[in-house]
Amino acid sequence: MSRIRNKPWADQYLKDNDHIVVQEPFTHKGTWKELFNEDQPVHLEIGTGRGAFISGMAKQHPEMNFIGIERVKNVIVGTLKKIIEADVSNVRLMNVDAKDLRDIFAPNEIDQIYLNFSDPWPKSRHEKRRLTYHTFLEQYEDVLKTNGNLVMKTDNQQLFEYSLASFSKYGCIIEEVSLDLHALEDPLNVKTEYEEKFSEKGQPIYRCKVRFPER
Amino acid sequence: MSRIRNKPWADQYLKDNDHIVVQEPFTHKGTWKELFNEDQPVHLEIGTGRGAFISGMAKQHPEMNFIGIERVKNVIVGTLKKIIEADVSNVRLMNVDAKDLRDIFAPNEIDQIYLNFSDPWPKSRHEKRRLTYHTFLEQYEDVLKTNGNLVMKTDNQQLFEYSLASFSKYGCIIEEVSLDLHALEDPLNVKTEYEEKFSEKGQPIYRCKVRFPER
Repeated sequence: MSRIRNKPWADQYLKDNDHIVVQEPFTHKGTWKELFNEDQPVHLEIGTGRGAFISGMAKQHPEMNFIGIERVKNVIVGTLKKIIEADVSNVRLMNVDAKDLRDIFAPNEIDQIYLNFSDPWPKSRHEKRRLTYHTFLEQYEDVLKTNGNLVMKTDNQQLFEYSLASFSKYGCIIEEVSLDLHALEDPLNVKTEYEEKFSEKGQPIYRCKVRFPER
Repeated sequence: MSRIRNKPWADQYLKDNDHIVVQEPFTHKGTWKELFNEDQPVHLEIGTGRGAFISGMAKQHPEMNFIGIERVKNVIVGTLKKIIEADVSNVRLMNVDAKDLRDIFAPNEIDQIYLNFSDPWPKSRHEKRRLTYHTFLEQYEDVLKTNGNLVMKTDNQQLFEYSLASFSKYGCIIEEVSLDLHALEDPLNVKTEYEEKFSEKGQPIYRCKVRFPER
């Protein structure tokens, strides 16, 4: 696959753009606001992929700050390229495997989280790896502001079914559900590369927005 | 439409079968158990339509009692015919427009509720008529046992999206979601007439099971 071919120039490219790619993300816990030019809400995308979503959102929403996490180096360079091309100053990226978001962010540091086309891990024995498994929801709740939102998009039916039940059992409020996002023709929906490809084939894209309630 | 053509013999047919069709349902509030031969869990279908679901479930589950409500006289005669053909003794029907279930059932009298292919009432101004609007959920909660379940099936995408959010905002726990019920090939799924027709066309059927939590 082209997306995982070796890119020997990647390390240098990420370092050369350290105004966007945060080099020591674990040292900024509790002080992420200081890395941005403007003091405004912070939205976090977990798994930026090739970057169409976060770059498009950053351009559409200059009144927000965006943080993107992507663990695959040869993928995050694509996100970085898109951010540079979009000429936006409200995005910071990090190339880490975020096993626990609480190592990176302090409580209440994030206003909204996005999960876009996360790995479905279809086998039951891999349930714990799904990003909507309850141990991840605990992390999201801890780093999100009270009443913070999570917005999820996926084309994977089983992952979406699982996630709705997982959110609900955890105590989240499911505020919006769309079972065919593109039929809505929402002009504000920013598509990922994956989503673009899928919606062209006419396959449904699922989206939900959930709220982590006060406890 | 054939299903609403006048059936002048309907009144007599319903009266002749008053061992199945309860004639004064409002007088049995709190004592529904006494109308059944066996003291076992009571499941309620709201809107029995032509009766394939309740007759099929009653046959599959002799260890449960079933109550069916259908407000259209010329439709409930179809349900009655199916119950008679199925030769089951664990079903009672009523031909009423149940504006408030609490006029018919006492608190905790019902173990599980089924909503099958309810009218979607797609216009926003008709939201209050949807059987998953919060005023109906209040009724369900009141007549259901603590931790009682509601199982909903529909082919209507918008109604299902609306209902998931409505259940969640109300405080229900969404325990199971299926976005393509027939792909599961669940041998225990009893199909309604409507469902049979839709699944033959390859259109997805949605199902969810929700729990009304302890307050």
